Amino acid sequence: MGISEKLLFYLKEDIAGGDITCDAVIPKTEIKAHIIAKQDGIIAGLAEAEALFLHFGVEAEQKKRDSDRVRTGDILVELSGDAAAILLIERTALNIIGRMSGIATKTNRLSTIVKSKNPAANVAGTRKTSPGFREFDKKAIVLGGGDPHRYSLSDGFLIKDNHLALCPLKEAVKKAASYTAYKKIEVEAESVSDALAAAESGADIIMLDNMPPEKIAAAIEALEKSDLRKNIIIEVSGMITEENILSYVLPGVDRISIGALTHSVKNFDVSLDVKPALKTVRINI
Amino acid sequence: MGISEKLLFYLKEDIAGGDITCDAVIPKTEIKAHIIAKQDGIIAGLAEAEALFLHFGVEAEQKKRDSDRVRTGDILVELSGDAAAILLIERTALNIIGRMSGIATKTNRLSTIVKSKNPAANVAGTRKTSPGFREFDKKAIVLGGGDPHRYSLSDGFLIKDNHLALCPLKEAVKKAASYTAYKKIEVEAESVSDALAAAESGADIIMLDNMPPEKIAAAIEALEKSDLRKNIIIEVSGMITEENILSYVLPGVDRISIGALTHSVKNFDVSLDVKPALKTVRINI
Amino acid sequence: MGISEKLLFYLKEDIAGGDITCDAVIPKTEIKAHIIAKQDGIIAGLAEAEALFLHFGVEAEQKKRDSDRVRTGDILVELSGDAAAILLIERTALNIIGRMSGIATKTNRLSTIVKSKNPAANVAGTRKTSPGFREFDKKAIVLGGGDPHRYSLSDGFLIKDNHLALCPLKEAVKKAASYTAYKKIEVEAESVSDALAAAESGADIIMLDNMPPEKIAAAIEALEKSDLRKNIIIEVSGMITEENILSYVLPGVDRISIGALTHSVKNFDVSLDVKPALKTVRINI
Amino acid sequence: MGISEKLLFYLKEDIAGGDITCDAVIPKTEIKAHIIAKQDGIIAGLAEAEALFLHFGVEAEQKKRDSDRVRTGDILVELSGDAAAILLIERTALNIIGRMSGIATKTNRLSTIVKSKNPAANVAGTRKTSPGFREFDKKAIVLGGGDPHRYSLSDGFLIKDNHLALCPLKEAVKKAASYTAYKKIEVEAESVSDALAAAESGADIIMLDNMPPEKIAAAIEALEKSDLRKNIIIEVSGMITEENILSYVLPGVDRISIGALTHSVKNFDVSLDVKPALKTVRINI
Amino acid sequence: MGISEKLLFYLKEDIAGGDITCDAVIPKTEIKAHIIAKQDGIIAGLAEAEALFLHFGVEAEQKKRDSDRVRTGDILVELSGDAAAILLIERTALNIIGRMSGIATKTNRLSTIVKSKNPAANVAGTRKTSPGFREFDKKAIVLGGGDPHRYSLSDGFLIKDNHLALCPLKEAVKKAASYTAYKKIEVEAESVSDALAAAESGADIIMLDNMPPEKIAAAIEALEKSDLRKNIIIEVSGMITEENILSYVLPGVDRISIGALTHSVKNFDVSLDVKPALKTVRINI
Amino acid sequence: MGISEKLLFYLKEDIAGGDITCDAVIPKTEIKAHIIAKQDGIIAGLAEAEALFLHFGVEAEQKKRDSDRVRTGDILVELSGDAAAILLIERTALNIIGRMSGIATKTNRLSTIVKSKNPAANVAGTRKTSPGFREFDKKAIVLGGGDPHRYSLSDGFLIKDNHLALCPLKEAVKKAASYTAYKKIEVEAESVSDALAAAESGADIIMLDNMPPEKIAAAIEALEKSDLRKNIIIEVSGMITEENILSYVLPGVDRISIGALTHSVKNFDVSLDVKPALKTVRINI
Repeated sequence: MGISEKLLFYLKEDIAGGDITCDAVIPKTEIKAHIIAKQDGIIAGLAEAEALFLHFGVEAEQKKRDSDRVRTGDILVELSGDAAAILLIERTALNIIGRMSGIATKTNRLSTIVKSKNPAANVAGTRKTSPGFREFDKKAIVLGGGDPHRYSLSDGFLIKDNHLALCPLKEAVKKAASYTAYKKIEVEAESVSDALAAAESGADIIMLDNMPPEKIAAAIEALEKSDLRKNIIIEVSGMITEENILSYVLPGVDRISIGALTHSVKNFDVSLDVKPALKTVRINI
Repeated sequence: MGISEKLLFYLKEDIAGGDITCDAVIPKTEIKAHIIAKQDGIIAGLAEAEALFLHFGVEAEQKKRDSDRVRTGDILVELSGDAAAILLIERTALNIIGRMSGIATKTNRLSTIVKSKNPAANVAGTRKTSPGFREFDKKAIVLGGGDPHRYSLSDGFLIKDNHLALCPLKEAVKKAASYTAYKKIEVEAESVSDALAAAESGADIIMLDNMPPEKIAAAIEALEKSDLRKNIIIEVSGMITEENILSYVLPGVDRISIGALTHSVKNFDVSLDVKPALKTVRINI
Repeated sequence: MGISEKLLFYLKEDIAGGDITCDAVIPKTEIKAHIIAKQDGIIAGLAEAEALFLHFGVEAEQKKRDSDRVRTGDILVELSGDAAAILLIERTALNIIGRMSGIATKTNRLSTIVKSKNPAANVAGTRKTSPGFREFDKKAIVLGGGDPHRYSLSDGFLIKDNHLALCPLKEAVKKAASYTAYKKIEVEAESVSDALAAAESGADIIMLDNMPPEKIAAAIEALEKSDLRKNIIIEVSGMITEENILSYVLPGVDRISIGALTHSVKNFDVSLDVKPALKTVRINI
Repeated sequence: MGISEKLLFYLKEDIAGGDITCDAVIPKTEIKAHIIAKQDGIIAGLAEAEALFLHFGVEAEQKKRDSDRVRTGDILVELSGDAAAILLIERTALNIIGRMSGIATKTNRLSTIVKSKNPAANVAGTRKTSPGFREFDKKAIVLGGGDPHRYSLSDGFLIKDNHLALCPLKEAVKKAASYTAYKKIEVEAESVSDALAAAESGADIIMLDNMPPEKIAAAIEALEKSDLRKNIIIEVSGMITEENILSYVLPGVDRISIGALTHSVKNFDVSLDVKPALKTVRINI
Repeated sequence: MGISEKLLFYLKEDIAGGDITCDAVIPKTEIKAHIIAKQDGIIAGLAEAEALFLHFGVEAEQKKRDSDRVRTGDILVELSGDAAAILLIERTALNIIGRMSGIATKTNRLSTIVKSKNPAANVAGTRKTSPGFREFDKKAIVLGGGDPHRYSLSDGFLIKDNHLALCPLKEAVKKAASYTAYKKIEVEAESVSDALAAAESGADIIMLDNMPPEKIAAAIEALEKSDLRKNIIIEVSGMITEENILSYVLPGVDRISIGALTHSVKNFDVSLDVKPALKTVRINI
Repeated sequence: MGISEKLLFYLKEDIAGGDITCDAVIPKTEIKAHIIAKQDGIIAGLAEAEALFLHFGVEAEQKKRDSDRVRTGDILVELSGDAAAILLIERTALNIIGRMSGIATKTNRLSTIVKSKNPAANVAGTRKTSPGFREFDKKAIVLGGGDPHRYSLSDGFLIKDNHLALCPLKEAVKKAASYTAYKKIEVEAESVSDALAAAESGADIIMLDNMPPEKIAAAIEALEKSDLRKNIIIEVSGMITEENILSYVLPGVDRISIGALTHSVKNFDVSLDVKPALKTVRINI
C-alpha cells in the first residue's frame, strides 16, 4: 500500500458503514474549522491530515509545518469546505496528528538531552511500532530529530541472540556478507567478548544490548585497543529510559535506540473546532 | 480487510523486501521457541499471534488464553516449526501482544477501581485508537473487561458540539430518529441544561462531557427530577485520569469513557526465546 | 468496495476481454446520444449511469433527476463524447437504470396505495436483493418513497424464528441489549402471545410475520391493552402482494415490508439512441 | 474476480460490520438445518450455496442437484455445522438460489414451449442481467435448458443499430472479419433487405430484431432464395413474451433471445429451517 | 488488471522500498531529459512510457510514434519535470520500450520477407510470451505489422495434439461447435490426412504444425481437391526461423506463426539522457 | 504481490475468460503427463511450475531439480491429475520454464567462461529484466550460478551518470552515507579519474562502465597504487558479449554485469506430453 492507500485505510476503519450522524444531521453547507494544539511540543502528521482533507475536496492551509515547535492554542491547520467532509475526517486526522506528534515530541526531548552531552550521538527508534502504522511512526521519529533505524527486516542485516542460537557468529557474518554486497551487517553483542568477536568477523555495526553503562564503556575501550573500532558504528540499546539516558551518552556511542519512542506513546493533545456556517447550499447529490 | 488480511498487512510492513538476516543466516531447521511474559498483567493478542504463526505452518500452543491474568516469567505460547518462519513473525507478533496486553492491563486496572465503588458502571473506550489497529485496540478493551464503545461512525449516532454548531439539538435528534429506526442516539452535553434538553429531545444516551464531578451529579439529579431519566444511559467523559477516576464513579453514572485507554498505551513487555535446534533437515525449496 | 468500484465491477462483467465490436468497427468520433424512457414510472439509476459515463470522459447531462416521475419518450440523459466510450457503457448503464427504476416504480405504486389509507405507514424493503447489487436496490426503494430497512446484518438486531429455535426469547433480547447500547432490537412474532412476550422482553420493534390481517389487529390490540405499545415500532411482513396490501394497512401498523420489491423486479424499459456523428477526428491512441 | 471471490463479495454485502444478532444471541453449538423448496420448478444455485457453506466449515449435502425439477416441500440441501455460520450465510444463499432458480424455471418453461414446435430451436438469454450477478444469471439459463448467448462484449461481434449509425454495414462486417479470425460476426437486422445485406456482407449470425412473425418469415424466405442461408444462424429477438412466443417459432429460426429471462425475474421461493440443537459446546474463540 | 495497473505493477517491481539513490542524492529540481534510440528499427512502447511519466507529473512529448521506423540517435521522447520522478521511472520505461521495440522490429523484418513473396500472408505470434507482459508483447507484434493470434485461451478454440489424445477429432470439433456459436475452431494437424479430417469435421482454421514445406504443399493441394478448402484459414507453424521462413511462404498459406517473436527477443537499445538542471526549487514536501 | 499471486497473475493472462477448448472438448478424466526437455542446459522454473499445478490439485513429481544440468529427452516433471487442469496450466508453466531455463543456461555458460580464468569473479545480472517477471529472472540467474545484483532501486545506492549530472560526486556519496547506515554505495565511473574520485569519496563499490579492457586495467592499477583499493568491490559493465567476455576477466575484477542475461533471452525448449487417459470419472461439478 502506498501512503494515500494507507491513509484511506485508516479512515475506512472509522467510517465503516458511513458517518450516520453527519448523513442524518448535518446540512449541505460550507464551513471553516481549525485544528488547534492543546499542549506544547513538536508537531507531526499535518501533511497526512492535509492529504486526507484534500482527498475529499476540503481546503487545508497549514499554519504550522511538520517538525515545528508549537504551543498550546496555536492554530495548526485552517480548514474550509463541506461540513460533512470535515467531520467525517476529524477523528482520523486527530488520531494521526496525536500519535505522530506524541512520538516527535518525545524523540525531540530525548534527543535534546543526548546532544547536550554529545552532539554527534543520535536517538534512534526500533521496529516496535504500532501495527499498521510503522511508516508514520518512523516519520515522526525523523521529524522529532531522531534516527528511524531499520524500517523493515530487509533494510539491513541484524544478527540477534535468536539467530546466534542457530548459527555461530563468524559463520553468520560471513553468510550475510556473501548474501548481498549491498547491505551492512549489524550484530547484537551482550558482552565485551561478543563485541570483539563481532568486530573481528567483519560486522559494520555493533549493538551493545542490555549492558550497563560501565560495561558499554569497557566494550568500546576494548574495541579501540584492538584496532577494530574504525569504520564500525556503535549502537546502545535496552533498559534505557528518559531518566537514565544521560548515563548512556558515553564517548564513542554513535546512537541510542529506544523502543518506548513508539511502543509506549503519550498522545499529543489536539482538537478540531468548527466555525459557524457561512452559507447554506442546495442539497443535490 | 478481514482479520487475517490485517494481520498479514502488519507482517508485510515488517518483512517488506524479505527477512534478509534469516534468509542468509538461518539453516533450514525445526526449532522450539517460547513467548514469555516479562511483567504481570492481563494478556491479549495471543489469538492474533497464533493465527500468524499457523499461517506459516508453525504450531503454536497457547499455554495462557487471552484475558488471563499472567505473571512475569509465564510461558504464554509454545512454538514449534521452521526457524526462519518463527523469526520472521517474531517482531510483528510481539508488537501485537505488547500493545493489546498493554491496553487490556490498563483497562482492567481502571475497571477494577470503578467497580469497587459501583459494580454496574463500566469503563469504556473511545475512537482514539492507533490508526490501522482499531479492531484490535477495541478487542483488547473487551478482554480487559471494558466496554468497547462505538467501533466506527456507523455504529450509532453521537451528536457532538461540532454537529450542534451546525444544527440545533432538537432538530438533530429528530433527524437522526427519522434516518433509521435501528440505531440509538447519543448526545454530548456540556451543561445541566444541555443534558435536560437532550433528554427532552429523545436522546437514548447522554454523554456528560468535560464536566467536573459536582456538575455531573447535578445533571443526573436534574434528569431524575424531570422524570426523563428512565431508559437513558448516562456516560461521563473528558479530563478523567487513573488518579481522579474514583471521583467520577457517581450514583447514576453508567459508563466512563477514557481516550487514554488506547491513545496513550504503555507497552506490555514480552519476549520470544528460541530453544536450541532439534534436528537439521535437508534444504529443499 | 466503494460506489465507483462497484460500478466499474459491473462494467467489467460486460467488457471482459474488451468491446471487440467497437474496437473493430467504430471510428474515433465524437457523438451525441440520448437515454430515453420507453414507459411511464419513477426513474432511478441516473446518478450511477452519469458516474460511469463521466469516468470515461463522456459528458452526461441529466434532463431528469432520480426519483422524478417520467413518461414514455422522455429524454433522461443527454450524452456527448467518444462514440466507443458511449457504446462500451450502454448496456451496463441501461441494466442499472432498468432495474433501479423498476424497483422505484413498484415501491412508489405500493407506497401510494398504503398512504392513501394511512399516511404515516411506510412500505419497506427486505434483505432479499440481487446479489452484488444491494446498495442500489436499497437506494431505489428510497427513491421510490419506501423505507430501505436493514442494509445488512450489522444495522440492527432482528431475532427471527431460526434464532429463537436456539435461544429463548427473553434471553435473546437481554443478550442483544447487553451486546451494544447503540442498536435497536427487532423481534419476529408469529402469534399474539409472541408479540406480547417480545414487548415484555424489551424489543424496540416487533415484526408480525406471516399473520392474516385479523390476527395482526388482535396483536396490536393486545399490545395496546398491555400498556407495552408505546415506543414500539410495529412492522408487518409475509404473504403481502400488490393485490392484498390494502387489507394490511391497519391502525397501528408502522411499516409493511415486502421482499418482492427487490426479489421479483419487473425491468423498467429504457434505451440509448445514438445521434449521427458530428465530426471525425484522427485516430491516435 | 473468480467465482469464490464473487460469492464472498455477495456475502460481505449482507454481513458488512458483522452479524450482530448471531454474535449476541446464538450459543456456540452444532446444528442441522434444511434448505427447502416452497414451490415447484427447476432448481439452480445449489452449487453456489454449497460453496459458501463449505467455506465456513458447514457440511452441505445436496439432496437435489442443480437443474433438477423439484416440488414444494423437497429438501434441497441438508446442512450441518456451527449455528452462527449457518445463519450468517442463510440470506445470501437463499437470495442466490431464489434468483437462479427463478431464471432456470422460467427458461425451462419457455424452452419447453419452443421445443414442442421445433426441437432444434433454442431459447436464449441476453446481456440484460442483474449488475454484478451476470455469471450466475447466465449459468441459470444453461441449467434451465437455454442458450446463454454472449457472456460479454468480447465473446463475439454483434453489430447493432447504434454501430450502424456510425459505420456502414459492409464496412463494419469487413472490419470485424479482419480484426480477428477467431470470433463470429452477428448483425442486427430490422428489415428483410437489412437481413439480405448482412448475409451478403459475410455475417455468421443474423439477429432479426423487433420484427413481427410474418416479416421474420419473409426475411428467412428471402435468405433461402438468395442461397446465402447456409452456414448462417438465425436469431429472433424483441417484443417476445411468454404469451406470444409460439408465434415466433417459425421454420428456420435457430434461436429466440429474450431479455426478460434475466431482467424481469420472479423469485423462486425457498427457505432455511433450523433443526433443534444437538449439543452445546464450550465457547472458545 | 487494467493497462495502468500493469504499468504501475512493473514500476513497483523496480521501486520496491523506494529509490534510495534519488531520495538521498537528487535535489528537488526540474530537468529535461531525452529518450534516444541507440539502434535502427521499429519503435514500440512509447505510449506505455508516456503513461508512466504522466502518472508522476512528468511531461512527455513523443517525437516519434509507436510503429515508426527510427534510426540510431533519434530522439523518441522529450521529458520535462521533476528530476527524481524521471529517474525513478527510467529503467522501467526503458525495459518496456526495449522489449516491445525488439519484438516489433523482428516482426517487421519477418513480415517484410513474407510479404515480398505473398502480400496476403501474415506473420503471427503465439501464446509464448513473457509471463506478466503478454498484453504488451502482443501489441508489439501488431505495431510491427504482424497478427497477434490468440491473446488467451478464451479467444477461440485451438484443438491440439494433447486434446486429441483425450477426445477424437470429429467429436472434439462437434463439441466445440455446440459450446458456443460465437468462436471459431482451429485444429492442429500433423499430417495430410489429419488436415483433411479436420476440414471434414468443420474446422474454421487448420494449423499445419511441424510439417516440412513439401508436406504443407501436399496438404493444401489435398484440401483444395476435396472442395473443403473454401472458408478455411490455413496456418503454418513449427520449426520456422528467420533463415528458412521464405520456404514456408507457399501458395495458400494464410499465416505463419512463430514462437520466437516473443519467446526469444533481442532487446532494442535505447537510453535516457538527462539535460543539466534548469532551476532549483524549494524542497517542500 | 507474493510469489503465488504472481504465478496466478501469469496464469490469468492466459486463461482470461476461460479455457474454452478444454471446457468444451476434454472429458472429466485423470491423466498422466510429462514435461520434457527438448535441448541441453541448466533447468529452472520447475518449482514455479510445480506450485501452479499443485494449486489446481495436480500432483507434480520433479524428476529433475532447479539448477540441474539436463539433456534433450529428460523427463523434468511427472504430472498426474485432472486433464483439464493440466492443459489449463500447460502454456503458462512452459513459458516460465522456457524463459527461466534460457536465462540459467546462458548465465551458466558465461560464468563457466569467466571462472575458467578467475574463479573468484562472478557474472552478474542487471535490472534489465522482463517487466512483471523480475523476481523470476533474478532467481534464474542465481540458479545458473550468477550474482543477481540489485533486485530493485531500494537494495543499495547506485550513483550513475544521470545522478552525477544533477549532484557532484563527493556530495552525492556523502548524502547517501548519511541517508542510512545500512546500505552500501556503488558509483559508476567512466574514466580512471572518476574511479579514483569515487574511491576517495567513500564508495563501497565502483562500476567501471563502458570502458575497454585496457582502461579497466589502468583504473584498477591506479586504485591499488592509491591505497584506496581495499574494501572496494570492482564491477565491470557495458559492451560485454559472449564473444569478448574473456578479455574483461582482468585481475582485480570482482564481477561482470551483463544486461543481455535477461533482456535478450533465448528460450529453452520444453514440451508437455499427455499420456492416454487412465479412467473416466463422472462429470459432477
